[in-house]
Amino acid sequence: MAARDDSAANTPGLWQVAVGDELLEGRTADTNSRRVQLALGGGVRARGIVVVPDRAEAVAAGLDGSRPGELVVITGGLGSTPDDLTREMVAAWAGVPLTTDARLQAELEARGRARGIADVAWAKRQAQMPAGLEPLTNRVGSAPALVGPLRDRTVVMLPGVPAELEGLLPDVVAWLRRRGVVPPPAPARLWRTAQRAELALVRSCEPVRERYPDLDWSWWLTRWGVDVRIAAAPAAPPPALARLDAAAAELEQRIGATTFARAPEELNVVVQEALLARGATLAVAESCTAGLLGAAVTEAAGSSEVFLGGVICYADAVKRDQLGVPEDLLYKRGAVSEAVARALAAGCRERCGSTHALAITGIAGPGGGSAEKPVGTTWIALATPAALFARCHRFPSNRSHNRRLAVATALDVLRRALVAPAGREPWLSEDTWARSEGG
Amino acid sequence: MAARDDSAANTPGLWQVAVGDELLEGRTADTNSRRVQLALGGGVRARGIVVVPDRAEAVAAGLDGSRPGELVVITGGLGSTPDDLTREMVAAWAGVPLTTDARLQAELEARGRARGIADVAWAKRQAQMPAGLEPLTNRVGSAPALVGPLRDRTVVMLPGVPAELEGLLPDVVAWLRRRGVVPPPAPARLWRTAQRAELALVRSCEPVRERYPDLDWSWWLTRWGVDVRIAAAPAAPPPALARLDAAAAELEQRIGATTFARAPEELNVVVQEALLARGATLAVAESCTAGLLGAAVTEAAGSSEVFLGGVICYADAVKRDQLGVPEDLLYKRGAVSEAVARALAAGCRERCGSTHALAITGIAGPGGGSAEKPVGTTWIALATPAALFARCHRFPSNRSHNRRLAVATALDVLRRALVAPAGREPWLSEDTWARSEGG
Repeated sequence: MAARDDSAANTPGLWQVAVGDELLEGRTADTNSRRVQLALGGGVRARGIVVVPDRAEAVAAGLDGSRPGELVVITGGLGSTPDDLTREMVAAWAGVPLTTDARLQAELEARGRARGIADVAWAKRQAQMPAGLEPLTNRVGSAPALVGPLRDRTVVMLPGVPAELEGLLPDVVAWLRRRGVVPPPAPARLWRTAQRAELALVRSCEPVRERYPDLDWSWWLTRWGVDVRIAAAPAAPPPALARLDAAAAELEQRIGATTFARAPEELNVVVQEALLARGATLAVAESCTAGLLGAAVTEAAGSSEVFLGGVICYADAVKRDQLGVPEDLLYKRGAVSEAVARALAAGCRERCGSTHALAITGIAGPGGGSAEKPVGTTWIALATPAALFARCHRFPSNRSHNRRLAVATALDVLRRALVAPAGREPWLSEDTWARSEGG
Repeated sequence: MAARDDSAANTPGLWQVAVGDELLEGRTADTNSRRVQLALGGGVRARGIVVVPDRAEAVAAGLDGSRPGELVVITGGLGSTPDDLTREMVAAWAGVPLTTDARLQAELEARGRARGIADVAWAKRQAQMPAGLEPLTNRVGSAPALVGPLRDRTVVMLPGVPAELEGLLPDVVAWLRRRGVVPPPAPARLWRTAQRAELALVRSCEPVRERYPDLDWSWWLTRWGVDVRIAAAPAAPPPALARLDAAAAELEQRIGATTFARAPEELNVVVQEALLARGATLAVAESCTAGLLGAAVTEAAGSSEVFLGGVICYADAVKRDQLGVPEDLLYKRGAVSEAVARALAAGCRERCGSTHALAITGIAGPGGGSAEKPVGTTWIALATPAALFARCHRFPSNRSHNRRLAVATALDVLRRALVAPAGREPWLSEDTWARSEGG
């Protein structure tokens, strides 16, 4: 969601047309439009995306949705096979002929021959473009980006292969900035949070939002929790920037404790860096998450500096034999209990020889729940050199989402413990997934 | 790819409208439209997708792109916060009032109270819908699907949270089929394969495809490998069905060995069922995948019947202390070697007390590669009651994809071992990621 900004709704923006049958037949999702938006850095607001099949009338209808003055980005259908007809379709829509860039053709033919490709007929097609556009060289593949004015719009045509598109985007954005089509990005602040539900977080922000309705507010779910972003208008004057700073200071008071990053950084990377900065190491004991936490910690390169490994203690026998959890604890308290969570974290830290150890034991669902311990009940424990913490959480969703919430919560608890004074409880006091009562 | 079908271009189809500022600001790509297309099983061909912001005039313009008689699927903006306005916007576009479903409201309030949520005001909003639509219960979250006729179209409204949308889709498709909006799926055959690259698999299919160009051929990448599908036209006559069967028989010869399912089943579920059917149990020793395999095995409910757990042996010390890999083996052969892979699988099977154990040790990248063992080099070992197998693979991609290929390959190797006669090598002889030479 975002606060309504009606002035922006009528200013010329970005209109995106994604071309390809594969986008309409369940074979692939249109992820290129997002790549284009990210590369433009919020400088131009997308007004809409239209996804159309490889057919002239559908592409024309998609382009008709754009308005004079807008930036129109068309992705897909620039390959060299006979089915790649986007060049022809855009030329027809604009009422201009196709021209051939002789220099580009010669360059592509030379590149083809250098790779031992005898038949370079494809180079002629790849060098064609609607008259008025110019090519930007593709270093990854053969299809160039095509940029220039058509029918009062600034048109950008990009190949649909993600690696080629990504490779071309920096040159395209530089070209657009030089011509003033794309302004510098809008001044903005970001909070990336974990451990709290969207509704709870939005409620915390609401009083600030009411005082600063002139800012652009947005929040969205992430794999870790909820992100909050506030922005001033692009090229906002100093008073607007001062209001942005004031709102940011108020928001920091309300959601700072649960914020793991104020830049587009991932929680697993933040944790990795926090461990590294303190010379700390991590091991994990995972029951219901069964490896999901270890996999998340090791996603980013460099994790072997701080992560030792751990035990996937799905069965009770593995909890007992590999982590030394006493049999009677498992029997009397149950695998999902404070006592077992503590024993798992302590046993894991000792046996793996790490400074820190996280343990997760819970009922992910759909089965296994009871009145006392409903589905979602999850104990998270953290062993540090100074202390042993454990807390019960009640995640509200299905098996897959409950497991991901457990991973995000465990990582954020570890992050808070690493930045807090030694021995201080790492738990948040606010309305999180945590339960004050155990079980 | 898919054969062009120009007659279908003019028949009433599917029109998709994805609503959400987050889809236009680079925060997330619209992946829901593809989920809807897949759930409809190709029975209705999508004519286009429009992605619009949370604004009434934009949503109305998106809906205006649909045609009478079409199925219109709207995703996003059904949450309970004041910014989730899709219900209101669709009602305005259709010229109908919003009505409240009292029974649904009571049900949602009861569910909220059962979870200890005192303030159930949100339930009232979640129970509102454009007059003429009816709700289908959401078992994952609170926003129901809304289905029914509006302005000569069949309208379906779905929440944008992927897990909720996925949970609702089977009921939505069943509702559409009952009303004849979605025809029965076209007669088709599916092969879900693992262990082979897309290009290699396509090459194996090519001779059959040339003999049966009248069938609809498609293939696409999945999280496990590549899916191949051939289909006759919907309501095809018996001769066409006979050709479908003949092509299927030829294809089975060529890609059957690498096929883990011939229905929309997931590899981790196939493996779980194969273990259960044989009274077998699994444990895992994961180095470079660091828990990804355990997480995949336990994704589906019921995994505790067959999965015991294992060890995330990221650091060499954990390989030595928790799985008994001899120090000199690690030193002389290196952690990524046949000897260590075998020791990991055997040690894991013994210590966890499982019938089967999988071990993965590799260089996921981007660092750690050498001329002898480049990035992607990955040993996979399998210990069974009868034998101990190990093989080197060379995955061709980046860290994240190499890790996923290792998990898919390990699971498919286990599947083949479970269905093969005891002791028979579970490896494929064809062009897979496997290397004949070690290292």
